[in-house]
Amino acid sequence: MNIQSIVIIGAGNMAWHLGHALKIAGLEIKQVFSRKLEKAIQLADSLDGQAINDLQSIDQHSDLYIIAVSDQAIAAVSQQLVLRLSPNVMIVHTSGATPSTIFDAHFLRKGIFYPLQSLSKDKKTDFTKVPICVHANLQEDAENLYQLGRRISHQVAYIDDQQRAVLHIAAVFVNNFSNYLFHVGSEITKDANVPFELLLPLIQETVEKIKDQPPQKMQTGPAIRDDQNTIDRHLAFLENYPSFAEVYQLISRLIPNMNSK
Amino acid sequence: MNIQSIVIIGAGNMAWHLGHALKIAGLEIKQVFSRKLEKAIQLADSLDGQAINDLQSIDQHSDLYIIAVSDQAIAAVSQQLVLRLSPNVMIVHTSGATPSTIFDAHFLRKGIFYPLQSLSKDKKTDFTKVPICVHANLQEDAENLYQLGRRISHQVAYIDDQQRAVLHIAAVFVNNFSNYLFHVGSEITKDANVPFELLLPLIQETVEKIKDQPPQKMQTGPAIRDDQNTIDRHLAFLENYPSFAEVYQLISRLIPNMNSK
Repeated sequence: MNIQSIVIIGAGNMAWHLGHALKIAGLEIKQVFSRKLEKAIQLADSLDGQAINDLQSIDQHSDLYIIAVSDQAIAAVSQQLVLRLSPNVMIVHTSGATPSTIFDAHFLRKGIFYPLQSLSKDKKTDFTKVPICVHANLQEDAENLYQLGRRISHQVAYIDDQQRAVLHIAAVFVNNFSNYLFHVGSEITKDANVPFELLLPLIQETVEKIKDQPPQKMQTGPAIRDDQNTIDRHLAFLENYPSFAEVYQLISRLIPNMNSK
Repeated sequence: MNIQSIVIIGAGNMAWHLGHALKIAGLEIKQVFSRKLEKAIQLADSLDGQAINDLQSIDQHSDLYIIAVSDQAIAAVSQQLVLRLSPNVMIVHTSGATPSTIFDAHFLRKGIFYPLQSLSKDKKTDFTKVPICVHANLQEDAENLYQLGRRISHQVAYIDDQQRAVLHIAAVFVNNFSNYLFHVGSEITKDANVPFELLLPLIQETVEKIKDQPPQKMQTGPAIRDDQNTIDRHLAFLENYPSFAEVYQLISRLIPNMNSK
């Protein structure tokens, strides 16, 4: 079976970006559900689908039901859906942090369709460059989800619940925590009347390098070359920034051992 | 006076990249000095200049002398140069970590010409996108260095010794330390048989966002939304990675206070 018709549950960021990517790829978005009818109408109209705010009118015969709601709401939505749908429909959610077992009590054919990207309301996303992590308990469904992913993205991977949990933790380090380091750079340059923009090409280059080489090989700076003079001078400056000094000390202590983990 | 003729002291990465950028912009590279004649010849030949490995034959009348050697070697090179050159020549070094006062005992017109980028041997660098930080003790020299910078780069800034020291510290956070975080992501995904490449678009997006907005505004993740359940689950997983767990705990503790510094 090829996936052709889809119902989207949710009308937030993920539903918008994913919905449009699927529509452009030629999929039929039959319905968009949101408790807020206005939000459902906005999205459904732009996808040529039907807006619903009552699960009683949910289409019974779509090939796929995509739950694109906040992590905390997935269980409740699943519970309501099983009252309206056959337990044999294929259902997925789009969360990186929620195991597929959340559907266990309600549905027989369940999976994950997780676009690994930080999506913004205001910003268009080129979905062809967003990696899609797919998983399903049935082999055939997993393959169909993979094919669906390939229709909207160049990069699709089979990722099970445990692997997805690891990806989510890794994303905290490479996205949330590196943004915090950029914040540190932004704060101390601002205080010195230095434009933060001067650092942007260096940041971009840091990212370019790990596209070809493992980060371990690309490590530079005073900590990896054991330049204690420079480290001491930097720490003296950071006395005015106790939080930033803590980060500096910890990571400088860990970098020399990065080869031994 | 417009800077037109240049002597480059050094034949390493910085000398190569900077020398070629200056040559392409129409500057005359009169000489390249390196203690290793073979290295001097390699670079000088590609710049249509003269290779020297003895400072006795250094040109006396160039508009600018650029010291592009390792931080530790700058003082010694400066000491040798003053024996061969008039103390009235304009001399600069290219180091982010070394104050311009290093020339105080030897030269009257001294400055900095610091390209803020991480340069690799194997990789071509588009120098027009490399910010150049300039400084000189004489106003006219500073302006000439600024003009020289503009001939090879779109982004030139007057940055004094203290500001450059802050930039250097900020670079450790945004470049060296963020690379360490990428290493963490690379390690834990490798151990779970997940391709690290899946995270590259997310990393790129993290960088795109701070080109428009301060990192402070772009902070996302469990720490900023005080999602202790997720943090606990992540820390349980990281028990196998005690170093990475330390980083996770520290930065998660600091992120909620990033608005108060």
